[in-house]
Amino acid sequence: MFSQRIERLSGSLIREILAAAQRPEVISFAGGLPASQCLPELDFSDMPQALAQYGTTEGEPELREAIAREAQKMGIACGADQVLILSGSQQALDLAAKLFVDPGTPLVTEGPTYLAALQVFNLFGASVHAVPQQQGSLDPADLAQALAEFKPRMTYLIPSFQNPSGACYDEATRAALAEVIDQAGVPLFEDDPYRALSYDGDAPAPLVSHLKKASWIYAGSFSKTLAPGLREGYLIATPDLYPYLVKLKQAADLHTNRVGQWFAARALNDAAYPAHIARLRATYRAGRDAMQASLEKHFADLADWQLPSGGLFFWLTLKQKRDTRSLLKLALEHDVAFMPGEPFYPVPEEGIGHLRLNFSHTPAHRIEEGIERLAGLIRNSQP
Amino acid sequence: MFSQRIERLSGSLIREILAAAQRPEVISFAGGLPASQCLPELDFSDMPQALAQYGTTEGEPELREAIAREAQKMGIACGADQVLILSGSQQALDLAAKLFVDPGTPLVTEGPTYLAALQVFNLFGASVHAVPQQQGSLDPADLAQALAEFKPRMTYLIPSFQNPSGACYDEATRAALAEVIDQAGVPLFEDDPYRALSYDGDAPAPLVSHLKKASWIYAGSFSKTLAPGLREGYLIATPDLYPYLVKLKQAADLHTNRVGQWFAARALNDAAYPAHIARLRATYRAGRDAMQASLEKHFADLADWQLPSGGLFFWLTLKQKRDTRSLLKLALEHDVAFMPGEPFYPVPEEGIGHLRLNFSHTPAHRIEEGIERLAGLIRNSQP
Repeated sequence: MFSQRIERLSGSLIREILAAAQRPEVISFAGGLPASQCLPELDFSDMPQALAQYGTTEGEPELREAIAREAQKMGIACGADQVLILSGSQQALDLAAKLFVDPGTPLVTEGPTYLAALQVFNLFGASVHAVPQQQGSLDPADLAQALAEFKPRMTYLIPSFQNPSGACYDEATRAALAEVIDQAGVPLFEDDPYRALSYDGDAPAPLVSHLKKASWIYAGSFSKTLAPGLREGYLIATPDLYPYLVKLKQAADLHTNRVGQWFAARALNDAAYPAHIARLRATYRAGRDAMQASLEKHFADLADWQLPSGGLFFWLTLKQKRDTRSLLKLALEHDVAFMPGEPFYPVPEEGIGHLRLNFSHTPAHRIEEGIERLAGLIRNSQP
Repeated sequence: MFSQRIERLSGSLIREILAAAQRPEVISFAGGLPASQCLPELDFSDMPQALAQYGTTEGEPELREAIAREAQKMGIACGADQVLILSGSQQALDLAAKLFVDPGTPLVTEGPTYLAALQVFNLFGASVHAVPQQQGSLDPADLAQALAEFKPRMTYLIPSFQNPSGACYDEATRAALAEVIDQAGVPLFEDDPYRALSYDGDAPAPLVSHLKKASWIYAGSFSKTLAPGLREGYLIATPDLYPYLVKLKQAADLHTNRVGQWFAARALNDAAYPAHIARLRATYRAGRDAMQASLEKHFADLADWQLPSGGLFFWLTLKQKRDTRSLLKLALEHDVAFMPGEPFYPVPEEGIGHLRLNFSHTPAHRIEEGIERLAGLIRNSQP
């Protein structure tokens, strides 16, 4: 006899596919893994031994201060006392769902939105309403209408290099969205793990920096910029939400591992950190450009897409609509993998016909081979 | 507007007191921290760089296999494929609550039981019924009656060196409790973080090793034997529960940090590990004996207690019943701290008049000073 939420528990399709795509002969555009050559050296030789002991739930002071400094540079008015270190930014979703979601609680997201966020919100029984993105943006009037119609307890947005769509909202749109959110008085969860991975100039200031009244949670990650194996992420929250999130974190796992916290703090405070980020950007920009060239060559007649100005993904809309979940099975038989688009929508059937393609993990020279193979499969198979 | 569970969210009194007891002049028996001199050297110089990348939700194969081997030695029939690595064993409580608990779901525990477990169960809305321990044991007939009366979805027990009571059930009691649980068909969560810290011979085989039919979760920790700052724990579960727990872990934080997993696997596979455990036992046994001598000298007229044969705590029952939460305030004014007993009961008012005293963190030479001071306060203040 399980809890009711277990009926709503779905595995992560991403990770099941990653498992299937582990065979070395598979060219996988499915995951979101950093390139191996971009991972920092795991050198812990200077780490204080005192970190073996229990730490505080909020996190290491040095890391919280470094994060607050970075956030202030981005335009977020916050102090280190609003920063909570997490066991990866995925944990921010679990804590926010615990804070806001009862069975039936309405939430508003973008459509598409982050798959693993949908899974957590569904697990807790949320009723998720997605506002469709339009031409790589989100229309403030559409958001206003959704907030008025569904009266959500929280709205969850990924304004910068969104996973999966790659969309990055411009500054005017952010200001207008913030005004809508302020007027509705709905707490905003801004998920921002890709900000540092920008290839054509910095992303505009976070949406939360435009808010004047609404409560907010801003979530960031070190999995894209440092090393996902450390499981280090963070959230920053307004003072009305922060104490609850700390207590929920404490109940979940007491505190985040201190070894990874020390590593992240040292990296952020290292004079060489900007050069490390510049190297990441150069590597991933090359991957993006290689994929763009391959797509132009092989997918021009098959799909529409926008060049992503950051993040890790292309988002293709097939000209001939077909369920990409069955296409994936076919692709795996031919040793190429991608992420189907349907699970990125609260109602998968409303999101038929999109593919998410990752360009950070496959070496540039294998990207064209994989794209060509995938295009051939789409061209030569029945939808 | 928050979720309903936020009304049930309580902070950890333990951690709030630990914060108040941080002043160096306080002699604190409140926490459960390992002794600093028992913490291993954090040497990561041989760690493979590949651990910087994402890992699997289940955990590192090498660590899962080492844990399964240790469990088999204890008498648990299990394979590595039943082992899930956690971000500390506290996470097992979060995952089990998600698996079993809806608002109003009945659970059965011992009374007293682990404070942080109660907090998690309450957060998820459980209706917790505690079966009183009697003379350091649990009467199987009492458990049978509670299972029949309350029909819980899960029973949560800590049979070995329980936190807070120090109780360790003998083998015959374990066999009888297992038979009761098997007959009721209620899943058992056995929490076993203190097993290695035994001072008068090994603890009997885990309760789950006696089960023939019932489903179970067995939770273990590296926070007592290695380094809590790594946040590494694990659970082992029967195959009917395991897949759900993996998916819940994935939704919570994707996977556990790999740096700590590598460290724990290396320690378990190290030929010097038994010697390390022997050193821990010697250190903590000395602390226990120092506290016992001090208690005999200063508390003989004030309280009853049993000598704990393992774990980290003495559990005192005051001869003159009084609320130890108000006593704590007085004690902190006099620079001595302990853990009040009331929060270890689902209904704190039913657990008036107990103190939990930790002997692992205060240096032996300060233990008597603190015990004497505490006895004086109790003797010279109004209940």
